Amino acid sequence: MSKGLAGQVIADTSRSRVDGQKGELLYHGYNIMDLGANSSFEEVAYLMWNSEYPNAEQLAAFKAEMAGMRTIPAELMSIMKSLPTGGHPVAVLRTMVSMLSLVDADAENIEVEAAKQKAMKIAAVMPTIVAAWQQIRNGNEPVAPRADLDHAANFLYMLNGEEATPEAVAAVDTYLVLLVDHGFNASTFSARVTTGTLSDMYSAITTAIGTLKGPAHGGATQKAMEQFIAAKDAGVEAWFNESMETGRRIMGIGHRVYKVEDPRAKIFRPLAENLAKQSEEGHWFDISLQVEQLARANQFFIERNLFPNVDYYSAPVLYMIGIPMDQFTSLFAMSRVIGWSSHVLEQLANNRLIRPLAQYVGPEGLTVPK
Amino acid sequence: MSKGLAGQVIADTSRSRVDGQKGELLYHGYNIMDLGANSSFEEVAYLMWNSEYPNAEQLAAFKAEMAGMRTIPAELMSIMKSLPTGGHPVAVLRTMVSMLSLVDADAENIEVEAAKQKAMKIAAVMPTIVAAWQQIRNGNEPVAPRADLDHAANFLYMLNGEEATPEAVAAVDTYLVLLVDHGFNASTFSARVTTGTLSDMYSAITTAIGTLKGPAHGGATQKAMEQFIAAKDAGVEAWFNESMETGRRIMGIGHRVYKVEDPRAKIFRPLAENLAKQSEEGHWFDISLQVEQLARANQFFIERNLFPNVDYYSAPVLYMIGIPMDQFTSLFAMSRVIGWSSHVLEQLANNRLIRPLAQYVGPEGLTVPK
Repeated sequence: MSKGLAGQVIADTSRSRVDGQKGELLYHGYNIMDLGANSSFEEVAYLMWNSEYPNAEQLAAFKAEMAGMRTIPAELMSIMKSLPTGGHPVAVLRTMVSMLSLVDADAENIEVEAAKQKAMKIAAVMPTIVAAWQQIRNGNEPVAPRADLDHAANFLYMLNGEEATPEAVAAVDTYLVLLVDHGFNASTFSARVTTGTLSDMYSAITTAIGTLKGPAHGGATQKAMEQFIAAKDAGVEAWFNESMETGRRIMGIGHRVYKVEDPRAKIFRPLAENLAKQSEEGHWFDISLQVEQLARANQFFIERNLFPNVDYYSAPVLYMIGIPMDQFTSLFAMSRVIGWSSHVLEQLANNRLIRPLAQYVGPEGLTVPK
Repeated sequence: MSKGLAGQVIADTSRSRVDGQKGELLYHGYNIMDLGANSSFEEVAYLMWNSEYPNAEQLAAFKAEMAGMRTIPAELMSIMKSLPTGGHPVAVLRTMVSMLSLVDADAENIEVEAAKQKAMKIAAVMPTIVAAWQQIRNGNEPVAPRADLDHAANFLYMLNGEEATPEAVAAVDTYLVLLVDHGFNASTFSARVTTGTLSDMYSAITTAIGTLKGPAHGGATQKAMEQFIAAKDAGVEAWFNESMETGRRIMGIGHRVYKVEDPRAKIFRPLAENLAKQSEEGHWFDISLQVEQLARANQFFIERNLFPNVDYYSAPVLYMIGIPMDQFTSLFAMSRVIGWSSHVLEQLANNRLIRPLAQYVGPEGLTVPK
């Protein structure tokens, strides 16, 4: 068995197909290039939860229902305001999603329709939690959600206290579409392991947020941005050469599954380029492009088929939109919660406890001293 | 690949060996029969975190250090008192462990010694959280921990507001020893998946609590007790026959790994029998024994090698000690946190992202309607 289950097919899914050789990603039959160009976050959420693309009527009803679930329950908002502000915002998100179960009298219900409702409630309120925390930790009153704005637009409105530009809204919406699902990635897999014991939806999503948080997964986008800042400070070429000499890893390049370019990077690169044209922070696109070009001209990256992954260009995209760096992973979670919960529903529909074995390599025959 | 990774050896561990054919369980070389009879919870915790059995001096220092970590930080205690009281106590435990990270300025540190300290802090404070919640949801003031009592004795003191009998303390201590580790069980495995992304100790333990919560894992002890109550109400034999006729599962019998009797059941059965002699609730041992005897005389159970597992007799044990049924899983978590965290340390020492693949079985070639 390969370490970390690398390359091991362990179950079936109809949620998404990742083709690491072709560089192709499907969500339930739809190509990510198509969805990224033509779909909204709400359309993709509907697709993932219902296994069909919504028509106009279905979409309108769905958007209205989900928009009605955005408010943080008052008793939890008052607790949130008293949370210590020193921790990582993703730890706050993990804590608040766990806490949501305490105000759901039906929290333990894992019947399909009930579980789907919980998924919708969690996904609808997560942007409110993320934005509210940004206000709270800065000493401001949280901004209440508006039901007349779409998911991405409402998030930016709550985050900044004013409506965002159409370009920023479109960029966040595309970001949220592109990050929704990706096969048995670590956070999704952890949510399925939690669900395998027939635990509840809140437990599964709490698990997934904690797993996503790691720098070898969702935490990588923040790390990628930090490296672009370090590269700018040191000079890009000097910084790159030093990375190669010291063996410092370039964040956002290379992927466990893709051996060609990550299709999501193909969308994020021009998105970053376009945002850069209108942004005072546009130089971050140039810097990330320079680092990519240096890497792709280097034998180390060429021989190993290491290309920018989804984290790489999403870093300057989120930065140029004005998302705080330590909230990058929160946005990832706001998107991936759709995939997590749709995998939980799939796991529940055909469950078996996920419980592997380990090879014991420790000592034997020891006895407790008398 | 078998469903749920059943029977699949996926990694090495030196933490514990589960021999499902012989019915044998070792923690780092020590047999559970030996540990169950001769060791305290603190000795086993030291063993699991340090890979060696403590001598008297080491044990004294360790106990003093851990006893000094029992208090819930004041700002979190005040939040805990304002939590909605309607949810499952394990959801409260999951939320509070997640919240602990917000008062740890070093929460993200996953260096070995730092991670070990976090494990000790979490394990030391979990009984306080469980006992405090029992008081809070009953409208009482939480009882502050006492450093002069051992781990099990202090827990029962906080839970009941008075010192427990030596028999109850010994039974809880044995319970906490027996549940510490069990190979790659689902909650431990989920903690390792979370850690595989280099996420932090708080995330890993939060994940594990949510996974343990499911009725196909830690939640099974509560389910087992509920069935003994139902069996008593209906008459044991009538209840058993109805179970067989309707295909209702007998909770606490059968195990994914053990094909002979679970060695922990061998300890819990006489423990339950002894407690029953001094308890007004002693009839629960008789009922559980009757159900076992009916099952073991039945072809269905004989043919499939289905024996009582760890959950079965621990149910009447915990019930006779006076643990509320919906807190059974909390006690399981208070024990297994030692195993979880020691597996997290092992994962960190030799990490690779745990990220399997899935076989895509969904539709292909769909396009977004224009």
